[in-house]
Amino acid sequence: MKIGVVVGSDSDLPVIDRAFAVWDEYEVPYEVDIISAHRSPELATEYATTAHKRGIGVIVAAAGLAAHLPGVIAAQTVLPVIGLPIAGGPLNGQDALYSVVQMPPGIPVATVGIDNATNAAYLALHIIALVDERVRRRLEEYRLDLPEKIRAKNKQLRERGLGGFIE
Amino acid sequence: MKIGVVVGSDSDLPVIDRAFAVWDEYEVPYEVDIISAHRSPELATEYATTAHKRGIGVIVAAAGLAAHLPGVIAAQTVLPVIGLPIAGGPLNGQDALYSVVQMPPGIPVATVGIDNATNAAYLALHIIALVDERVRRRLEEYRLDLPEKIRAKNKQLRERGLGGFIE
Amino acid sequence: MKIGVVVGSDSDLPVIDRAFAVWDEYEVPYEVDIISAHRSPELATEYATTAHKRGIGVIVAAAGLAAHLPGVIAAQTVLPVIGLPIAGGPLNGQDALYSVVQMPPGIPVATVGIDNATNAAYLALHIIALVDERVRRRLEEYRLDLPEKIRAKNKQLRERGLGGFIE
Amino acid sequence: MKIGVVVGSDSDLPVIDRAFAVWDEYEVPYEVDIISAHRSPELATEYATTAHKRGIGVIVAAAGLAAHLPGVIAAQTVLPVIGLPIAGGPLNGQDALYSVVQMPPGIPVATVGIDNATNAAYLALHIIALVDERVRRRLEEYRLDLPEKIRAKNKQLRERGLGGFIE
Amino acid sequence: MKIGVVVGSDSDLPVIDRAFAVWDEYEVPYEVDIISAHRSPELATEYATTAHKRGIGVIVAAAGLAAHLPGVIAAQTVLPVIGLPIAGGPLNGQDALYSVVQMPPGIPVATVGIDNATNAAYLALHIIALVDERVRRRLEEYRLDLPEKIRAKNKQLRERGLGGFIE
Amino acid sequence: MKIGVVVGSDSDLPVIDRAFAVWDEYEVPYEVDIISAHRSPELATEYATTAHKRGIGVIVAAAGLAAHLPGVIAAQTVLPVIGLPIAGGPLNGQDALYSVVQMPPGIPVATVGIDNATNAAYLALHIIALVDERVRRRLEEYRLDLPEKIRAKNKQLRERGLGGFIE
Amino acid sequence: MKIGVVVGSDSDLPVIDRAFAVWDEYEVPYEVDIISAHRSPELATEYATTAHKRGIGVIVAAAGLAAHLPGVIAAQTVLPVIGLPIAGGPLNGQDALYSVVQMPPGIPVATVGIDNATNAAYLALHIIALVDERVRRRLEEYRLDLPEKIRAKNKQLRERGLGGFIE
Amino acid sequence: MKIGVVVGSDSDLPVIDRAFAVWDEYEVPYEVDIISAHRSPELATEYATTAHKRGIGVIVAAAGLAAHLPGVIAAQTVLPVIGLPIAGGPLNGQDALYSVVQMPPGIPVATVGIDNATNAAYLALHIIALVDERVRRRLEEYRLDLPEKIRAKNKQLRERGLGGFIE
Repeated sequence: MKIGVVVGSDSDLPVIDRAFAVWDEYEVPYEVDIISAHRSPELATEYATTAHKRGIGVIVAAAGLAAHLPGVIAAQTVLPVIGLPIAGGPLNGQDALYSVVQMPPGIPVATVGIDNATNAAYLALHIIALVDERVRRRLEEYRLDLPEKIRAKNKQLRERGLGGFIE
Repeated sequence: MKIGVVVGSDSDLPVIDRAFAVWDEYEVPYEVDIISAHRSPELATEYATTAHKRGIGVIVAAAGLAAHLPGVIAAQTVLPVIGLPIAGGPLNGQDALYSVVQMPPGIPVATVGIDNATNAAYLALHIIALVDERVRRRLEEYRLDLPEKIRAKNKQLRERGLGGFIE
Repeated sequence: MKIGVVVGSDSDLPVIDRAFAVWDEYEVPYEVDIISAHRSPELATEYATTAHKRGIGVIVAAAGLAAHLPGVIAAQTVLPVIGLPIAGGPLNGQDALYSVVQMPPGIPVATVGIDNATNAAYLALHIIALVDERVRRRLEEYRLDLPEKIRAKNKQLRERGLGGFIE
Repeated sequence: MKIGVVVGSDSDLPVIDRAFAVWDEYEVPYEVDIISAHRSPELATEYATTAHKRGIGVIVAAAGLAAHLPGVIAAQTVLPVIGLPIAGGPLNGQDALYSVVQMPPGIPVATVGIDNATNAAYLALHIIALVDERVRRRLEEYRLDLPEKIRAKNKQLRERGLGGFIE
Repeated sequence: MKIGVVVGSDSDLPVIDRAFAVWDEYEVPYEVDIISAHRSPELATEYATTAHKRGIGVIVAAAGLAAHLPGVIAAQTVLPVIGLPIAGGPLNGQDALYSVVQMPPGIPVATVGIDNATNAAYLALHIIALVDERVRRRLEEYRLDLPEKIRAKNKQLRERGLGGFIE
Repeated sequence: MKIGVVVGSDSDLPVIDRAFAVWDEYEVPYEVDIISAHRSPELATEYATTAHKRGIGVIVAAAGLAAHLPGVIAAQTVLPVIGLPIAGGPLNGQDALYSVVQMPPGIPVATVGIDNATNAAYLALHIIALVDERVRRRLEEYRLDLPEKIRAKNKQLRERGLGGFIE
Repeated sequence: MKIGVVVGSDSDLPVIDRAFAVWDEYEVPYEVDIISAHRSPELATEYATTAHKRGIGVIVAAAGLAAHLPGVIAAQTVLPVIGLPIAGGPLNGQDALYSVVQMPPGIPVATVGIDNATNAAYLALHIIALVDERVRRRLEEYRLDLPEKIRAKNKQLRERGLGGFIE
Repeated sequence: MKIGVVVGSDSDLPVIDRAFAVWDEYEVPYEVDIISAHRSPELATEYATTAHKRGIGVIVAAAGLAAHLPGVIAAQTVLPVIGLPIAGGPLNGQDALYSVVQMPPGIPVATVGIDNATNAAYLALHIIALVDERVRRRLEEYRLDLPEKIRAKNKQLRERGLGGFIE
């Protein structure tokens, strides 16, 4: 099961980049497309309506401003669509958050935090884990590791003192 | 030149109703369709791509929440599209306003105030007035009338006093 | 695969009710628990850490105000967690939306619109459809039906006129 | 048919600049004036009341803060007025957006996104296209080109990989 | 010295009514006019440019939505202008507050709280007190009375208990 | 150790009422005063500067709009001051929240949620528990009871079903 | 008649600086004090209660965050108090704006835009002009000059072209 | 009585640093731990449930984004918990403020201003002063010093003039 990533503009690629790092680590395949809901609506339709057949299991759609892309994709597929609002423009992503999350009843978008590509990546993995036992085990290991990392940081903090730690 | 009205949900019809009263008064023909950007994307495409041929000159699109309809229509026609954000839901139309007005560069939506169907109606008339001298003259008369109406109200206010006037 | 629903307070049950109607229609089993992240943190832990073993595949967590429940559950399971912000209190759900969606990197919550239990329900179904072909087909039929319903409404609108339609 | 541009302050000129580039490309004539609704109200009146006679067909008015200029112009002409809110000041354009879009019933301003001069430019062109077949065809060509550009970007992305593309 | 009151719409009169009660108590003369910045711009100009000659010393201007009236009046007189944002419409006066208070440098409006006609009334009195010793003394007496009233309420609260007091 | 309650206006008493119920249950003494930071500044000074001597250990100050009372009290005592923002007025308490919580460095107000008198009450108890072992034990019992109450509700929910439970 | 300026912190002095330039130009005397509503409440009381006797006619009070200073001063004098919200801190002055403008009925603060010291300066002059004919005439001249300056800028714009003008 | 500090992420340490300076000055002991509500929920439980036994009297919890940490800690201890919202991320701390302050009834968090570690520090001291007479006296001295410092600044301002002072 592959993850399909669509970004509304190539200027969103540096933000979504952090998701790729996560998926590479989990060895989950993904593919990336630049598709604008408004500048290429028929590409969005083509993408959404063929995604399932092309082996895509979860779609991550990132967009800024009046971020319609996640909703437009979600309207044309029954695959789960994760929406990533991007903080471009003077409203700093509050516009994108509302446009992504406040979908009409019947067509949901699974929204994550503004610019939080890491969470878009992990949410995709949590969904894939339902069908991929390996990913599930990796996620469980990741969760077990997190407190260890924090314990290690606290140990460092105590050894070096606050000043030394911040440096 | 006809005005095409699309509403995202039949629950928006009572709000847009005030626009119809304006157009009836100006004797400008219009037609109304219920089209959801998400629940019927192919209807939206069909509507937008054929609007010009069907004699529509200006489109008014009304929607609430993550109000994508105006933008989705605007993306598929070069007719001017007027977006009317509707104040449904707990965010009271601020979500709809952002989703309608913050369109990406290249695909504009002419946005009017939240729930302000009267202004959607008048904006359509101001655009039509560029090609219809009769509408232009009617608008100019309307503008000349406005101060008269306000003068008359002030006269009433002075004659009846504030108490009498409010009653 | 069962859906697990947790609400932060029994006052949230009337909102989540609309989700139950959807799942009943799709014949997908679900169970409901009242669990407060703050008033019963150990119940939340117990719930989250045993959910997978108890056959739950997707969790829907609803909460208002500083809505921590979805995040607290998500932190203790690798099942996908859908967060439903509730519009209780003077900030009308904007506080709940931020508390649910702005999770730290690594622990995502799949957020839907404020009070939008229908979308929490459908998002759960879209995820389940990855492992349940019957649900997938039902969702595809639902999507095919949506434009038909809208076409029928438009037909009614033309036959009865706007006044008759609104009545 | 000429486009009339008014900016509330010369500090807005660098933002509106992007509109001029669009109009130059479409070979549509325009003229620019600095007019403050508050520091030169009689200039605003003079401008608005004579614009039609001077061959202007559409007005674009840009202003920041309590951005009254678009509304003040719109109140004194029946030409369509496009309002461009500028993101100057500590509220980052949210004040300007509200001041431009929330006009009283009867006097609409066609509002575009904050700082989005490109969309002010295109909205003017979409309106002009109603009376100028050449502009209409150019807009249709532009729309046909947009997906091509996006396809080309996707091709580049695949050829160079993400790292190479971002560079 | 007379107070001039202008309201953007007759629907604002019930809100401003509380100001009249204050001025009646202080025996300060005032006159009320309905003047829309957009529907009757020339009335606004006429009003502002002749106010000083007509014996007006302070102007109170009330308006809702994109509340331009206070600024438009302030731009055409050097009398102090008090702006009262009205909470009409779905944004509940936040739009009006921004439109009234965020004036460009050089043309100030003395803004009071949303719907707070009492404070518009008192601010006018504080300004008039600079030239009217009687008003100054009355304001000083009012201020001396305020703690007495609060002491009396506290006495009542202690005598009756909370339950009795609230009744 | 007594709790001192000050409300900015007697209209705030019905909101703070819920705090009294909590303190009655915990048998902690309290006294209530109506004190306006602006209408009776010297009462506020008198209250704050004598509170410690009068046996008050914690102060709860409630106010709406530009809610200065908690800060004004906090500035004149070294007792801990709990600020309760009240949701009066068109901004629904967001103004009060900012006015209470955003205090300058050096003069803190311990802010609780808008209209959340219950939390003002409990926060006072948590502070008093540092010096009153009985209150601490009562709070611990309350916390132990909370999950029991929630378990009981879940039992009811399972026995009666959702429909029966909501009734 | 002198203008009294109080700033809540010496870090506000660079913002208020622009007001001094205006008053110097109008040759109106002013004096500046640093007074914190919270760190020096008795200084605030002393200042406010003696201002009138010390020949101050109008007070300008500037503060950021939970900007109580203007209200605290206004509560203790019947001189008109102009409040200047400062955009310090992460909320960028929206907190200060609410804290300054949303005063309780009876104690108004004449609020100007966030960081807009120029308008605080001019508002003080408009008030002083009621008692100082010279200031009134200067303000009228300033207003007459404003359109001239704008005409001159337009002339420059036409002569140099946009590129030359921006340079 | 020791102060326990928990930060949601080591990136919050530079902000909380200002609190340490205050406590060092007051010679009040404190200890710092990095604990994430989501990445190490069991550490949070362990910390909160053992804090009282380890001699901690007041807890300061700092977090950004959907800042659950203060609430999660507060839910598992009856010690007073001070919540410090951190301004990280595109919403600049407004998300963190809501997540910290809008706690459900029964589980309060004593919230201070966004990024205002100094006030978290002082609020802890005001609470400790209830049981530590030395801290109380130090706080009273601090308060007596504050106006002196401000008087000194005013003296400097008068001696050096504004220009000299700002330098």
